[in-house]
Amino acid sequence: MNDFEWSKAEKQAARRAFDLALKRECLAIRGKLEQMLKADEDFRQIWRIHDYLSEKRREVDLKYDYRYSRLITVFGRLLMEGWIAEADLGGLAEDKLQRIKGLASFMEQSED
Amino acid sequence: MNDFEWSKAEKQAARRAFDLALKRECLAIRGKLEQMLKADEDFRQIWRIHDYLSEKRREVDLKYDYRYSRLITVFGRLLMEGWIAEADLGGLAEDKLQRIKGLASFMEQSED
Repeated sequence: MNDFEWSKAEKQAARRAFDLALKRECLAIRGKLEQMLKADEDFRQIWRIHDYLSEKRREVDLKYDYRYSRLITVFGRLLMEGWIAEADLGGLAEDKLQRIKGLASFMEQSED
Repeated sequence: MNDFEWSKAEKQAARRAFDLALKRECLAIRGKLEQMLKADEDFRQIWRIHDYLSEKRREVDLKYDYRYSRLITVFGRLLMEGWIAEADLGGLAEDKLQRIKGLASFMEQSED
């Protein structure tokens, strides 16, 4: 399915978009963590935070798979989940963009 | 070694001291977590916090062992580490207190 060739410029664009999404998602996790700290002063709250971070770490490790054979699917999901916008994918060839957008809307429908 | 009998009143006193130490240590972990958040705005800091909490959770799970056969040693350690003071152990019989204090100073010397 992901039998695309990646030019050097596209690899750079992909790396930028990938890193941007990862940073955004990690900052969102950080925001949630800060919110959890504020929401509950109970001393056991640190373990709920630990559970939350464990879950998110597994999720992020699985999701952010930077292999070129996986990248189109990864970007499809990141687009669907809102961690990247179409504009962040500037620099990728049109056929890749179309595939990514197609995957994103397919995934979105599948989740409904 | 810990062949003591525990009266009902002593069990209650032990539970109070145990819970107090646990709460203090968890609050200290929370304080360190808040400090780590403030110290570094890097988005990867959440994973350093996760590593820290994983380590502390293992440590706390092992340390806070509420079996009567283990409790004297547990209190010895908590006293040595400063999570409880002698005054927090009020309600325990004198022989238990002496054993706990003896263990605490033995452990302290062993760590020097």
